[in-house]
Amino acid sequence: MTQLSFEFPDGKVKQFDAGVDIKSIAKSIAISLAKKAVAGKVDGQMVGVNTPLNKGGKVEVITSDSKDGLSVLRNTAAQLLKAALHDTYHDDIKFGTNGAYDDGFYVDTDKKENQVSADELQPLSDKMNKMIKHNVPLKRVILSKADALNQVDGDPYQAKLVNKFASNDQVAFYQINDYMSLANGVVLPSAGSVKYFKLLSVAGAYWEGKSSNPMLQRIYATAFVKKVDLDADVKKRQEARERDHRVIGNKLDLFFVDPKVGQGLPYWMPNGATIRRVIERYIVDKEVAAGYEHVYTPVLMNLNAYKTSGHWAHYRDDMFPPMKMKDGEELELRPMNCPSHIQIYNRHIRSYRELPLRIAELGMMHRYEKAGALSGLQRVREMTLNDGHTFVAPDQIQDEFKRILNLMVDVYHDFDISNYHFRLSYRDPKNTTKYFQNDALWNKSQKMLKGAMDDLGLDYVEAEGEAAFYGPKLDVQTYTALGNEETLSTIQLDFMLPKRFDLHYVGKDGKDHQPVMIHRGIVSTMERFVAYLIEMYKGAFPTWLAPKQVKIIPVSLDKHGDYAKKINAKLRKLHIRSEVENRSEKMGYLIRDAQTHKIPYTLVVGDDEMSNNQVSVRQYGHKDSKDESIDEFVKQIQKDIQSYSRHYGE
Amino acid sequence: MTQLSFEFPDGKVKQFDAGVDIKSIAKSIAISLAKKAVAGKVDGQMVGVNTPLNKGGKVEVITSDSKDGLSVLRNTAAQLLKAALHDTYHDDIKFGTNGAYDDGFYVDTDKKENQVSADELQPLSDKMNKMIKHNVPLKRVILSKADALNQVDGDPYQAKLVNKFASNDQVAFYQINDYMSLANGVVLPSAGSVKYFKLLSVAGAYWEGKSSNPMLQRIYATAFVKKVDLDADVKKRQEARERDHRVIGNKLDLFFVDPKVGQGLPYWMPNGATIRRVIERYIVDKEVAAGYEHVYTPVLMNLNAYKTSGHWAHYRDDMFPPMKMKDGEELELRPMNCPSHIQIYNRHIRSYRELPLRIAELGMMHRYEKAGALSGLQRVREMTLNDGHTFVAPDQIQDEFKRILNLMVDVYHDFDISNYHFRLSYRDPKNTTKYFQNDALWNKSQKMLKGAMDDLGLDYVEAEGEAAFYGPKLDVQTYTALGNEETLSTIQLDFMLPKRFDLHYVGKDGKDHQPVMIHRGIVSTMERFVAYLIEMYKGAFPTWLAPKQVKIIPVSLDKHGDYAKKINAKLRKLHIRSEVENRSEKMGYLIRDAQTHKIPYTLVVGDDEMSNNQVSVRQYGHKDSKDESIDEFVKQIQKDIQSYSRHYGE
Repeated sequence: MTQLSFEFPDGKVKQFDAGVDIKSIAKSIAISLAKKAVAGKVDGQMVGVNTPLNKGGKVEVITSDSKDGLSVLRNTAAQLLKAALHDTYHDDIKFGTNGAYDDGFYVDTDKKENQVSADELQPLSDKMNKMIKHNVPLKRVILSKADALNQVDGDPYQAKLVNKFASNDQVAFYQINDYMSLANGVVLPSAGSVKYFKLLSVAGAYWEGKSSNPMLQRIYATAFVKKVDLDADVKKRQEARERDHRVIGNKLDLFFVDPKVGQGLPYWMPNGATIRRVIERYIVDKEVAAGYEHVYTPVLMNLNAYKTSGHWAHYRDDMFPPMKMKDGEELELRPMNCPSHIQIYNRHIRSYRELPLRIAELGMMHRYEKAGALSGLQRVREMTLNDGHTFVAPDQIQDEFKRILNLMVDVYHDFDISNYHFRLSYRDPKNTTKYFQNDALWNKSQKMLKGAMDDLGLDYVEAEGEAAFYGPKLDVQTYTALGNEETLSTIQLDFMLPKRFDLHYVGKDGKDHQPVMIHRGIVSTMERFVAYLIEMYKGAFPTWLAPKQVKIIPVSLDKHGDYAKKINAKLRKLHIRSEVENRSEKMGYLIRDAQTHKIPYTLVVGDDEMSNNQVSVRQYGHKDSKDESIDEFVKQIQKDIQSYSRHYGE
Repeated sequence: MTQLSFEFPDGKVKQFDAGVDIKSIAKSIAISLAKKAVAGKVDGQMVGVNTPLNKGGKVEVITSDSKDGLSVLRNTAAQLLKAALHDTYHDDIKFGTNGAYDDGFYVDTDKKENQVSADELQPLSDKMNKMIKHNVPLKRVILSKADALNQVDGDPYQAKLVNKFASNDQVAFYQINDYMSLANGVVLPSAGSVKYFKLLSVAGAYWEGKSSNPMLQRIYATAFVKKVDLDADVKKRQEARERDHRVIGNKLDLFFVDPKVGQGLPYWMPNGATIRRVIERYIVDKEVAAGYEHVYTPVLMNLNAYKTSGHWAHYRDDMFPPMKMKDGEELELRPMNCPSHIQIYNRHIRSYRELPLRIAELGMMHRYEKAGALSGLQRVREMTLNDGHTFVAPDQIQDEFKRILNLMVDVYHDFDISNYHFRLSYRDPKNTTKYFQNDALWNKSQKMLKGAMDDLGLDYVEAEGEAAFYGPKLDVQTYTALGNEETLSTIQLDFMLPKRFDLHYVGKDGKDHQPVMIHRGIVSTMERFVAYLIEMYKGAFPTWLAPKQVKIIPVSLDKHGDYAKKINAKLRKLHIRSEVENRSEKMGYLIRDAQTHKIPYTLVVGDDEMSNNQVSVRQYGHKDSKDESIDEFVKQIQKDIQSYSRHYGE
């Protein structure tokens, strides 16, 4: 019999008969290893634990407690789910892809008439548990391509996958009970080890990820080796779900995305739009007071500008396709606002007296994020950045950096943002390909940034080699509900763009000098910032930001409705976002409903209130209410709004 | 000799020998007509007054006092200008097209090295006057195409035009002194009649109107039959120029357009951006108070939506090219906001209780206006519309129409707009192709609009056949500085879109009903409205809109600079747009300079003011100043701002 030679990770080499499997190879090392083995790798390629091997190479035994082992477990669970689905719907269900990923596993389905719904997950789960209990085998069967196509006849998705997967006219299937399931990844030999799994949810997913293709229904699920890991994961998902800005955004009717009319293009409903408008006015006023000149510049620009800036060369994959116009122009939706602000700078010959020149804008940009990365307001393709570019003389860098930092800290305070950290990014002096060569400039500017942080007494971490290629930067890092780190604010020095666009100012000496550009964003994009705030406040916005600030509930619509309307008119005239409850439901329900919608103030008005010219005030998150005169209440809420109060329910 | 048969406008027919000219034909009617004849038309085609005719047909004599006659005069003047240019620059100048248009005539030129400048117009004008004085003939010469190309050798533009104009291998030239000028339109036989002309200005114009082509230098000029008409025109141009929003926009640094980075894509400089921002906040607040729900929706949408709406079928030429995305989507920059607001409507199932539902937005749109039509902020390709769509039950049309009208009149009052008129547009009941067939619906809705106008006591004109195909409308018409009529506001009923997008609400009866959509714009696009206001206010914006509201001038920077800064800080804290003059120039110059920049309040502070805690206040347009305490001044300017005061200099 042919002998195969296998090399182990520690470099040792052993010989085995052809047809040996991973299990036997593991056993040759230790019985305990064979017990834990769930699969193997030969020359980097995954193979089943019982699959006969006909070729030697570098071998690795995959155990259940490794990352690869977990994905084998999840692949197995996905196959069991397919089998359960087939057992339930027979030929009425077609299958897209299935597989394991970092957070669990999934199966894409296309059911005749109604798609699989969340209600159907429990019975499917029960069927899977039955197979697990009976330790049903997943028997690997190799078919010819013709037989495979015959096997999946009537399912166009599987037919396409057979063509894709076929190798040397061979296609692998797993036989589970009487169902022949197209193989997609390595699985365990039998169902018994898949004990701790959970079917989570269903959602649309395009076939092959393309919106021009049919929408399939994706079943999301997860599985773990140990019960404690599954329980922890389920709890984490639950908590994240409750804080997830998409869930809250839906509940409070803040925004939505409809992939049919545009992936990653959010629609801001009136409630969400109000929050955004308040933030936009706040930050513009703040910046104008801090000496910024706000402008409006076009979202389109001649492609040549992005060739000059270097974006077209380095960033093209993230840009929208250029539009060839009838009169010969080639226009591009801007991915950045810098070239637009350079246009503003270059509109006049600038003098040193004008520096620092601070140009700011709520600048709309378009970036072609991958469809899979899109998420509610957090990751979108059309976004409006709280952008600013400061043009400074080189000796003004440190002062200007401090001014921006002070503005940033001031703004964070108003929004009550405290869960963040600063990261200073320097060049890696050894990386001479990424970073331009000017030791003096890098050292001096990095020292200036560090000095400013120290002067202001701020804590920070330093990251060598994380600077942009055009200069050092400071980032402010936060976390999303789902635990992803993201950058909320940034200050970046740029020595390159002023050179590329040949920017100048006339110095005191009457000669031309080159300014340094500072890119800065304080509250990032409106989309990302509102997503962040939704998660941070868990939807309970402080009064100044709340889309609805006051709900007035008359005890009886007939008797107290007019009084409620009078108060409402008074509040609205003062630009307080108030409304009268006009449904005739039980008082308890209406008060609870106002709390569910996280409205900061609920005013109940009945006989007593009417005769005393009072309102009964209940703040969001508080259990008790107190009677106040209307004037007292107005004074209170106005103070609340003007002080950007941070009482959003405790 | 062959006889030709000519039919006169009154139907009479006469015979003439072949080779007869218009002059002789005119003489056969009356000597006086022959004297006034400057050209003729045979079967609608212009011919010179002396050109021998070889074909009969419907004939018309063109006299100097007609519109066609004027264009013959201007064509002649254009040819004289070409001759004068050639006489001055010889082979160093090349020619694009030339010709007459409604407002005058032009010649496109491309000069070696420096282009023709405004300074050179006077000597050119002198040369033309010399030709006129000597009554130089314009002799029509027919060349073969080959000879013609030889004649224009070295001038690539003229060579292209020879190819374009050649007919049966014949190309017409006019010989003027020794210069052979390519013919472009019919001219007078000699220069003598062109007495009253004026060379006006020079400006760049792309060859064939395409930005990808070379930029030529266009010489603008005009000519009239009578001196009184030329004088009136020159005066009108001067006045219009002074009011032209592009001239003022440049002077006050409000905005600019740079065709190199995008035709029709304006950049708002800080001063212009401030005006726009104040208007945006004003109109949004006004609409929110009036019950509108403001939203933000994406500027991009799947092309399918515009196929459903009908825009793609009927409006494609004015739309930007669709973008084919990598994942298969086809996205379109929206030319209208209606489908976006329909998305908002359709986000929820709507009840009759929610109607009228008023959705509003500062909605950015893109329309591909012709390059020649673009003008400053008035005609642009990227614009932000003060848009709103009201969804109403059919019986709510009249009330809602009134509400919108009231809002409109209220807004006009705040901006002090009074030079406008209302135009009600109805269908033409006989035009059954343009207008959908539903007599009851048209009659009822038109009656509702008219009734509302009458109820409110507003004057209006009625225009049958000018309604949109989807319903009747009301437009508010105004005039630009250059005398072009434009629509500032509009209210349009739409019975079609709710049908195309299958919109519904649940009625009191629990059944589905179709709403009517009302499209409405109050202050039109931000671009057009600001252009309109610049011209209306002649740049002197009332205090609430002025980009800079207060200029503080210290008599001595050293002695009174700190006092000025203290006042400035106080004003800025109250969100008053104030700044301190920090140049050390003569007081008279600085005060004049503040007036030139049309700043509403100039405060001079010296010894007296400092010791009395006062300021010396001078309002824009007033000759004298008065001393006030700082508090008095603050009170005055705050009242001014809050009341949208209309004192913008008298």
